[in-house]
Amino acid sequence: MDRRERMRRLLAAYREGRVPEEEAISRLEELSFVRLGHSTLDMARPVRTGRGEVVFAEGKKTEHLLEIVEVFLSRGENLLVSRVREDQLGPLLERFPRLVYHAEARCCTHVASPPPPCAHRVGVVTGGTSDVPVAEEAAITCEFYGVGVERVYDVGVAGINRLLARLEEMRSLRALVVVAGMEGALPSVVAGLVDRPVIGVPTSVGYGAALEGMTPLLAMLTSCVPGLAVVNIDNGFGAGYLASLIARL
Amino acid sequence: MDRRERMRRLLAAYREGRVPEEEAISRLEELSFVRLGHSTLDMARPVRTGRGEVVFAEGKKTEHLLEIVEVFLSRGENLLVSRVREDQLGPLLERFPRLVYHAEARCCTHVASPPPPCAHRVGVVTGGTSDVPVAEEAAITCEFYGVGVERVYDVGVAGINRLLARLEEMRSLRALVVVAGMEGALPSVVAGLVDRPVIGVPTSVGYGAALEGMTPLLAMLTSCVPGLAVVNIDNGFGAGYLASLIARL
Amino acid sequence: MDRRERMRRLLAAYREGRVPEEEAISRLEELSFVRLGHSTLDMARPVRTGRGEVVFAEGKKTEHLLEIVEVFLSRGENLLVSRVREDQLGPLLERFPRLVYHAEARCCTHVASPPPPCAHRVGVVTGGTSDVPVAEEAAITCEFYGVGVERVYDVGVAGINRLLARLEEMRSLRALVVVAGMEGALPSVVAGLVDRPVIGVPTSVGYGAALEGMTPLLAMLTSCVPGLAVVNIDNGFGAGYLASLIARL
Amino acid sequence: MDRRERMRRLLAAYREGRVPEEEAISRLEELSFVRLGHSTLDMARPVRTGRGEVVFAEGKKTEHLLEIVEVFLSRGENLLVSRVREDQLGPLLERFPRLVYHAEARCCTHVASPPPPCAHRVGVVTGGTSDVPVAEEAAITCEFYGVGVERVYDVGVAGINRLLARLEEMRSLRALVVVAGMEGALPSVVAGLVDRPVIGVPTSVGYGAALEGMTPLLAMLTSCVPGLAVVNIDNGFGAGYLASLIARL
Amino acid sequence: MDRRERMRRLLAAYREGRVPEEEAISRLEELSFVRLGHSTLDMARPVRTGRGEVVFAEGKKTEHLLEIVEVFLSRGENLLVSRVREDQLGPLLERFPRLVYHAEARCCTHVASPPPPCAHRVGVVTGGTSDVPVAEEAAITCEFYGVGVERVYDVGVAGINRLLARLEEMRSLRALVVVAGMEGALPSVVAGLVDRPVIGVPTSVGYGAALEGMTPLLAMLTSCVPGLAVVNIDNGFGAGYLASLIARL
Amino acid sequence: MDRRERMRRLLAAYREGRVPEEEAISRLEELSFVRLGHSTLDMARPVRTGRGEVVFAEGKKTEHLLEIVEVFLSRGENLLVSRVREDQLGPLLERFPRLVYHAEARCCTHVASPPPPCAHRVGVVTGGTSDVPVAEEAAITCEFYGVGVERVYDVGVAGINRLLARLEEMRSLRALVVVAGMEGALPSVVAGLVDRPVIGVPTSVGYGAALEGMTPLLAMLTSCVPGLAVVNIDNGFGAGYLASLIARL
Amino acid sequence: MDRRERMRRLLAAYREGRVPEEEAISRLEELSFVRLGHSTLDMARPVRTGRGEVVFAEGKKTEHLLEIVEVFLSRGENLLVSRVREDQLGPLLERFPRLVYHAEARCCTHVASPPPPCAHRVGVVTGGTSDVPVAEEAAITCEFYGVGVERVYDVGVAGINRLLARLEEMRSLRALVVVAGMEGALPSVVAGLVDRPVIGVPTSVGYGAALEGMTPLLAMLTSCVPGLAVVNIDNGFGAGYLASLIARL
Amino acid sequence: MDRRERMRRLLAAYREGRVPEEEAISRLEELSFVRLGHSTLDMARPVRTGRGEVVFAEGKKTEHLLEIVEVFLSRGENLLVSRVREDQLGPLLERFPRLVYHAEARCCTHVASPPPPCAHRVGVVTGGTSDVPVAEEAAITCEFYGVGVERVYDVGVAGINRLLARLEEMRSLRALVVVAGMEGALPSVVAGLVDRPVIGVPTSVGYGAALEGMTPLLAMLTSCVPGLAVVNIDNGFGAGYLASLIARL
Repeated sequence: MDRRERMRRLLAAYREGRVPEEEAISRLEELSFVRLGHSTLDMARPVRTGRGEVVFAEGKKTEHLLEIVEVFLSRGENLLVSRVREDQLGPLLERFPRLVYHAEARCCTHVASPPPPCAHRVGVVTGGTSDVPVAEEAAITCEFYGVGVERVYDVGVAGINRLLARLEEMRSLRALVVVAGMEGALPSVVAGLVDRPVIGVPTSVGYGAALEGMTPLLAMLTSCVPGLAVVNIDNGFGAGYLASLIARL
Repeated sequence: MDRRERMRRLLAAYREGRVPEEEAISRLEELSFVRLGHSTLDMARPVRTGRGEVVFAEGKKTEHLLEIVEVFLSRGENLLVSRVREDQLGPLLERFPRLVYHAEARCCTHVASPPPPCAHRVGVVTGGTSDVPVAEEAAITCEFYGVGVERVYDVGVAGINRLLARLEEMRSLRALVVVAGMEGALPSVVAGLVDRPVIGVPTSVGYGAALEGMTPLLAMLTSCVPGLAVVNIDNGFGAGYLASLIARL
Repeated sequence: MDRRERMRRLLAAYREGRVPEEEAISRLEELSFVRLGHSTLDMARPVRTGRGEVVFAEGKKTEHLLEIVEVFLSRGENLLVSRVREDQLGPLLERFPRLVYHAEARCCTHVASPPPPCAHRVGVVTGGTSDVPVAEEAAITCEFYGVGVERVYDVGVAGINRLLARLEEMRSLRALVVVAGMEGALPSVVAGLVDRPVIGVPTSVGYGAALEGMTPLLAMLTSCVPGLAVVNIDNGFGAGYLASLIARL
Repeated sequence: MDRRERMRRLLAAYREGRVPEEEAISRLEELSFVRLGHSTLDMARPVRTGRGEVVFAEGKKTEHLLEIVEVFLSRGENLLVSRVREDQLGPLLERFPRLVYHAEARCCTHVASPPPPCAHRVGVVTGGTSDVPVAEEAAITCEFYGVGVERVYDVGVAGINRLLARLEEMRSLRALVVVAGMEGALPSVVAGLVDRPVIGVPTSVGYGAALEGMTPLLAMLTSCVPGLAVVNIDNGFGAGYLASLIARL
Repeated sequence: MDRRERMRRLLAAYREGRVPEEEAISRLEELSFVRLGHSTLDMARPVRTGRGEVVFAEGKKTEHLLEIVEVFLSRGENLLVSRVREDQLGPLLERFPRLVYHAEARCCTHVASPPPPCAHRVGVVTGGTSDVPVAEEAAITCEFYGVGVERVYDVGVAGINRLLARLEEMRSLRALVVVAGMEGALPSVVAGLVDRPVIGVPTSVGYGAALEGMTPLLAMLTSCVPGLAVVNIDNGFGAGYLASLIARL
Repeated sequence: MDRRERMRRLLAAYREGRVPEEEAISRLEELSFVRLGHSTLDMARPVRTGRGEVVFAEGKKTEHLLEIVEVFLSRGENLLVSRVREDQLGPLLERFPRLVYHAEARCCTHVASPPPPCAHRVGVVTGGTSDVPVAEEAAITCEFYGVGVERVYDVGVAGINRLLARLEEMRSLRALVVVAGMEGALPSVVAGLVDRPVIGVPTSVGYGAALEGMTPLLAMLTSCVPGLAVVNIDNGFGAGYLASLIARL
Repeated sequence: MDRRERMRRLLAAYREGRVPEEEAISRLEELSFVRLGHSTLDMARPVRTGRGEVVFAEGKKTEHLLEIVEVFLSRGENLLVSRVREDQLGPLLERFPRLVYHAEARCCTHVASPPPPCAHRVGVVTGGTSDVPVAEEAAITCEFYGVGVERVYDVGVAGINRLLARLEEMRSLRALVVVAGMEGALPSVVAGLVDRPVIGVPTSVGYGAALEGMTPLLAMLTSCVPGLAVVNIDNGFGAGYLASLIARL
Repeated sequence: MDRRERMRRLLAAYREGRVPEEEAISRLEELSFVRLGHSTLDMARPVRTGRGEVVFAEGKKTEHLLEIVEVFLSRGENLLVSRVREDQLGPLLERFPRLVYHAEARCCTHVASPPPPCAHRVGVVTGGTSDVPVAEEAAITCEFYGVGVERVYDVGVAGINRLLARLEEMRSLRALVVVAGMEGALPSVVAGLVDRPVIGVPTSVGYGAALEGMTPLLAMLTSCVPGLAVVNIDNGFGAGYLASLIARL
């Protein structure tokens, strides 16, 4: 690849004294970016953080998305493509057959080199059946970063004994992602019962006064129970990322 | 009193044939209103509904309030004055020493003739200590209408075992008023555990994203648990009134 | 069915002393849940409450919905499937021909064993013709729970004499569900005229400042008339459920 | 006064041909403004519209307010000073003893030359006692512009027979200003019963979901009854101005 | 028609003394309603107000709409059907070829007997070209009620000289309907220049911070210029109705 | 063209004394408008400001749009048609093949006579790839008005070193348009690093709590960094217009 | 203390076989609650979680607060009293001189037995000087739970080099609490630079479009940078609690 | 001062070779910050931008404010202290008698060395008298940065001829700050008439639907007129800063 070639030549020139140190550093840094016109990809980030790269597909033109994925896959990076639109899915899988599609979670992953094993597991909990797609996005994200997941689905406050039946299991996990729409009470109830970091994910499940997820979002934020922080509506990825970060501390 | 005198004369005139029936009815109806310039009091209402009259004090000028209370007390009505402002309290109690002041609930009552006894009791439940004033408004209202109250205070979802410890008691009541601020999860949890009509009262307790009570209000409205309806923020009176209406069905 | 078989074997083992009491109880409780991966169904609930089960269809994947309905019908439960999406209707009726579809109310019911008769009736009232679908959801729900319904449709405040003409009828009912969009004034007017518990249902009928139902919702909540509580926008089911609960007290 | 002197000299110069016509016009127009640094008063407006001038006091510094009132009073204009703050009232009345203060309406008026009589009257209606101050602002405004007012106070939907008792009276008026807080249903009910232009004035009376008047405002705007338009929350002046404009057509 | 037949028989029975007066009146009143299951039509209203009937089509099922229109047309009423959805238009025109369709205004009218002539005209003004459909709804409504209309389109504040060029014309009209989206400044500017009642109609034209019309709505309501009242977003009908009411005073 | 002919005749009549000066001026001014029924085009504006004309296509009927474009192109004006809807594009390009379509920016331009060269350049910066369409609208607008553009795309705060790498370049420009969705932090960061006027453009990129762009809009407005002003959500045109105005000062 | 006495007697009775096991357990559990009328204190919680108890003072009546604090202190618990109102401070410190007051953080602590040492430290970062009180609440909370704190104050995006100068230090910490008002950009920038769990705390610092903290709250939630979760506006306690929970994992 | 002393010693050590270059640079940079515990002051900023420093007083504790001002004044910087609270003013002026207080603008300035003269002037325009304090904040800010200001106050759309009378003057200025509350129409009108960059400043002047300034803010953002950008509600400083930046380009 010619970017690497350019790096090799630059380093040689530096060693031979043809390029001063300052200039070498700034030109090397510049080389870590891949500029695509519409996008500026920082190839140094995965190296720096040791974490696989993520591309948020939803708002992007399909042609832009394909170019970006191309860059990362061609360099052998681990890649998670989240929120894949239906019209993007065909072109994506056709061009990159290596990608694995997770239908429930609406995302694709490619794991070139598996992350190191993690001693701790994370729980992903939902209030209802309709919250499962967001929960799966969180779960797949954790697994992409090498953290095992316990799924506890449809245990909302309408029938709280479903939750109580699995408390012991939940207390053995490192962190909990709790996904709920409508009145968003579940993360508060869980945080009141389990002394672990809880990441609340409000969903847009519900209607009317649920305000497309604003109501569970606000409810989780004003919880009277400590130990709970919140991410954006339907942001399963963000919750999974943070949970995996905590699990790997 | 000259209104009653006018009624007496009108009835006499009717009996003697000096006033036709139609006119008598319409003039009698007109006489059931007391017009105070700023207010139009319908004296026929307590008679019609058999329920004591209520005056909402907060938005009224003290002089207007005193005139209104005067009319009802002078006619021997049962009266509940709700949301009494601090500056109204002195003049009110000074002029009408018969009024009983309920400090926690910020209201005054006068019971001239006790309502008939009611076979059923109502529960008033709160999530926290700060919700007690609103809960007391509901409880005093129920008691004003002759319905007994079971108080279950400070049993919110931060420590749900406090609630579970009193479930049996709550299941024996006719209806439940559940008062909660912040994330407003308690009415959902209660409605999921007790098969009785639940009236949720959101409170303005909380800060920031609690939006002065809008968040618990919206959360209660979008509850995934049926059997629950909601009244305005801090509206203990409205919840107590409705609960007493249900208890007396 | 193997769950029942498992229960039988467990009870036998307990009787024979092979399983201690504590363990038997906890394993029996666990057996009352049916876990479907995406859902956790509590089969003990209908038994406990004596009320037919309800499945909210709208947010669910069709395949998940079919699996859930299968579980309940196969156990002979009364079932109400609410908010059926158009794309779900075909598969649902094809697979479960026993289900009765109520087109106006967008829901399906199956009554395996009729609930006990109820002495009281409930009124369902609408402001306009466009509110009828929500009202029908409330009415069908009441009837599903065995409570008779009086329908009083299109009697909104634009022509209040339409309402006055039916007042006597409304006063004879146990509770009133009042459905209105736009300015949402009807529940206040009804509660001012009829001394019965009124459940207001705001609808998303209207445009612009109606804010998809938020305006009638807020208006009903701030009503100056007591005796009125409110459920979520378009939540005919919730109102019908609560009304039937009150009618059966 | 030197502005008038300047006008006299300018006109003389024009007549004598020392100033061309174009320049004379533009300099005359410029002279119709009184510039006070903080304010630009258009003295030609009252002349042009034939209507007394209005100064909105609330947001102004007292010293600015006094300077502005001084200009208008010194020129013999009719003047309405609306929304007078408590701290402004003393200085205002002390300096301009001619001003008449209307306590309930929180405004001052000075009528130098009464407006021509108006054949029609306007109704000002309120839902409750707490709405009276806003209603009085509307009523005083009408009277300031020479239009007679019929006051119909405290006839809200909690006791709709109070309103029905005065329907005939209301039908004889030219236009109706209907003032209501909380759920704001009254203007809709009135417009459904009286075939006259109705101007709805939402008030900030209420709490919680009343959102400081936004709820009655939105409710009035989404009314299902035609013949109704709305002004800002608590804007009694605006409603009175428009009603007097209609009455004088 | 059998309703009229029933009325005839009832009146005969009354004359012959077989039915007492009270009962006759209440049965006659009842006969003025046409009950369609989904709708309650008050046939006495057009008679009482002398104004043609209006049906709001948008939220109604097509079959309900057709039944309602049938009732009014079969009785020879003037009828305006507003907000006709595209899928309703075909069935409507096919079944009632007498209806005249106004494409820009999205409404249909049938004028059986023209209203009496009106001496005054009304102006309908828009800020931009995109506001024309709402303006046409207002204009057609005025014309339906027999009031002539002056159209002044696309004269918004981006080029205020377009407005100034037509001021004289606007000052000769009885009332002005001013339609504007985006920042909604035009009604304020017009009310500042023309001393006539101005009815502001905010439109949903605009994007982003225009909040689907809430921004011009709020802006018009907070106008610093008196003489202006506001109707709901895109509510051309409501503005036209009120303007025609004012023009006919 | 007959408008010009009419102007010629009017001027002749004036010169010959058949038309007095005042009347000539007012008739000439009137002639500068082209009235299309739905639109009022001010042909004097491009002359007066020396800037090409702009037509906002999105809210307009295609037939209206074509008529408006026809008027401007036929008079040889520079024209920018912004926010072209997909269904408008075909008819537009078919009828006016001279128009150049900019797909990313969704606009068409025709430059009849290029604007004078501008010594300064403007920067257009985006936080992400999804913001590029709005950025391109800004860039094309600048170029339409003759101002060169430096594009700096996808340098948001998730990887701030991408931004730091291009700081020097950005400091050499006259003004910066900074386009960002989601949390909208980029304009603040840029304004803190570059001492140039920054115009923030929030985009509707994002979901949930991004509130369709309201969140970045509000965030930019409350920035703790001075030197930054904001335009409407997705308003690339407005930002580009203002940036070109500043560049040409 | 008589509760302990009751427990001792109960245990004795159990050992002597006078009370069966089941009953003993349920009576012991019941004894773990202290009921104060207004409050239900769960004395078993600190034991169960091993974490000091917290009382939120702000919404409570002073007399209620004192009773609650009394219970915990008398049992030798570690106690944090947060959000102490000014009028509560005097009585609190007078009655419980053991309490240490942290003026900047507006809270009191009493550490009876220090928590076990923690190997990790937490960072508390602010955008500005005005955010310091909220930051101190977070810092004091961490220290109350035995976790050391690094304070990095006033390093917001208006001068980002202040932040860059302390990056290395921040990368050595276990978790970061980032406190910011106004546009709330700092947590995003920090999360983009430091690969650690970041807890964003929006503050009510700012005015106008900051909407009392809603804008930074929404901005943090929609951050384009992962690894960040958010707590309620001004909720320093909640952030500190969660950070200490993570640090102790 | 010891910070300067430390710099001197560091430079000496570097020259003598006791400190290597890299270390010298990083220690010098570190020395440019003044850390006050609560604040991190970047003393290099005024040097770098050549613009006087600004301190926003409102949210700061008085003692913190005094320490910060002390640092800047002691180093001879030009300083603007904006939004001084009443309780801060006394201590501020007492301790720093050099500060000049601008009462209307609520800010203090100290100009140690006047900025270079600027060839261009800026206009500051208001809709009403109540907007003057915000306008003065903008004006004082411009003057602090050496840019002359033309004040055009109280020329809002209620009397648009007041504005037209000063158009020529406004067209001669470099940029315009236009301050308006209530419906916020003035910036749109000005931008339509004057071809200069316009910075709109919404104010919190108004009531009810003005939503404490949100309504004029949103209205300005959705203006149909280009050439206009907006700053936060009441943010006179931000507008003045940006205008001075443009004037000095």
